[in-house]
Amino acid sequence: MSKVTVAALQCAYTANMTENIDRVEGLIVDAAKKGAQIILPTELLQGPYFCREERDEFFDWAYPANEHPVVQRLAPVAKKLGVAIPASIFERDNHHYFNSLVMIDADGSIMGTYRKSHIPDGPGYEEKFYFKPGNTGFKVWNTKFAKIGVGICWDQWFPECARAMMLMGADLLFYPTAIGSEPENPTLDTKDLWQRAMIGHAVSNVVPVIAANRIGNEGGQIFYGSSFIADQRGEKVAEFGRTETGVLTASFDLAQVKLNRASFGFFRDRRPDLYGILTQ
Amino acid sequence: MSKVTVAALQCAYTANMTENIDRVEGLIVDAAKKGAQIILPTELLQGPYFCREERDEFFDWAYPANEHPVVQRLAPVAKKLGVAIPASIFERDNHHYFNSLVMIDADGSIMGTYRKSHIPDGPGYEEKFYFKPGNTGFKVWNTKFAKIGVGICWDQWFPECARAMMLMGADLLFYPTAIGSEPENPTLDTKDLWQRAMIGHAVSNVVPVIAANRIGNEGGQIFYGSSFIADQRGEKVAEFGRTETGVLTASFDLAQVKLNRASFGFFRDRRPDLYGILTQ
Repeated sequence: MSKVTVAALQCAYTANMTENIDRVEGLIVDAAKKGAQIILPTELLQGPYFCREERDEFFDWAYPANEHPVVQRLAPVAKKLGVAIPASIFERDNHHYFNSLVMIDADGSIMGTYRKSHIPDGPGYEEKFYFKPGNTGFKVWNTKFAKIGVGICWDQWFPECARAMMLMGADLLFYPTAIGSEPENPTLDTKDLWQRAMIGHAVSNVVPVIAANRIGNEGGQIFYGSSFIADQRGEKVAEFGRTETGVLTASFDLAQVKLNRASFGFFRDRRPDLYGILTQ
Repeated sequence: MSKVTVAALQCAYTANMTENIDRVEGLIVDAAKKGAQIILPTELLQGPYFCREERDEFFDWAYPANEHPVVQRLAPVAKKLGVAIPASIFERDNHHYFNSLVMIDADGSIMGTYRKSHIPDGPGYEEKFYFKPGNTGFKVWNTKFAKIGVGICWDQWFPECARAMMLMGADLLFYPTAIGSEPENPTLDTKDLWQRAMIGHAVSNVVPVIAANRIGNEGGQIFYGSSFIADQRGEKVAEFGRTETGVLTASFDLAQVKLNRASFGFFRDRRPDLYGILTQ
């Protein structure tokens, strides 16, 4: 009962949302055939990473969370296959726009919405133009298969986010992502840094980490894939390169991970009395 | 003015404290010759890692911080060479015993004491028998060459500690260490985990990290060295293996590091309003 199989999906997207959802659905089916129970698509799978530019028309790509075409399409898929799917969407809530995650459980039910807490901004990643910083706080989801935390992309660089989800009881950490080249700094390749930050979370929290990133060339911005699954010691147990499309899977014995975590004693030895500065 | 050269020392120790301090002094001289300005010896350089066992007699190895033979010997060395030395000691303060760090600046002055906040406990690492958890809080030191944070060994696994020192203005993070094999679990080699956790801090805080670990076989417990210096992207720029004695050095342009840090925007995008759970 403590065994769980997870998957990370990696693919490119076009401007055609229906095609994109079709592609992701196909990969979800592949992942389920491989035994995956919790299946992570990349961030904003509905289409191109529009935050590459600041253009008003892209606000039309947002929908109320539960009405979002991605959710409408993937919830029945989750139910049919009996898999849980953290689905990343562009959400509109009246006059507010968020970079959000709708958690779909294995019976197709919507467990709720998490809104990305940390919003990046810079050349090629103009997210502060589109998204209000999330107002939900971090969330963990007691899915059919495991209690999981899901951070969205930029959240993955913040140790506070990983630790908070762990303190809320997460057994696995998932990160849907859209990251690639830096238009203003062609010599900066952040791929290793991106992995190192999350591998640090894996070790410091003794928890497996699953990250799914897109690939493809979108107007000269090259998304570098390199999706991976790391175990609770930060060892990469599955990893894609920068151009493959497909499904990564890995299985974990969460009871064993829990013993490893207790044995390390990090949660025993924390000093919350000294951490006040983190909240100022 | 923003350039700084740092060093990490790696060596083994015997039961003879004077010999141990002699050895460390020799390495400090070597490091200074290589241009190092801030020179990090390993944790508890006074002798064997006594926490391997729980024995009353070892409490006699503690001294009041400023009277500790390590401090008495290394402060004049710091002054003579014009280098800053974070010196790890076993401290006694009346009836309390701490795993402490005395910061010696380049003029030989004692800047103060930091007491290790996170205390491990387990087979081979029975620190809770000896040390009261530190009551100083995290500290940063405005040395002649740079503002630095120093965590002591187990502190290095805690992202909260690294982040707190950064929020206090640290430009470099140092970690004196004593870590090796696991007597109760011979198959567990923590070397990669140990490096990954600190490399995570380097990336998440865009800060160079300097770690110095001892080597040697102490009663069957094998200390694995692997001291390293990582740059602000988590790239190891200098690293020892598991058995070498010597000095690692690296130079950093702190003005450039500061620009890298600002450009990444992690400190811009933090959400202290959501981090309350970390202090509970």
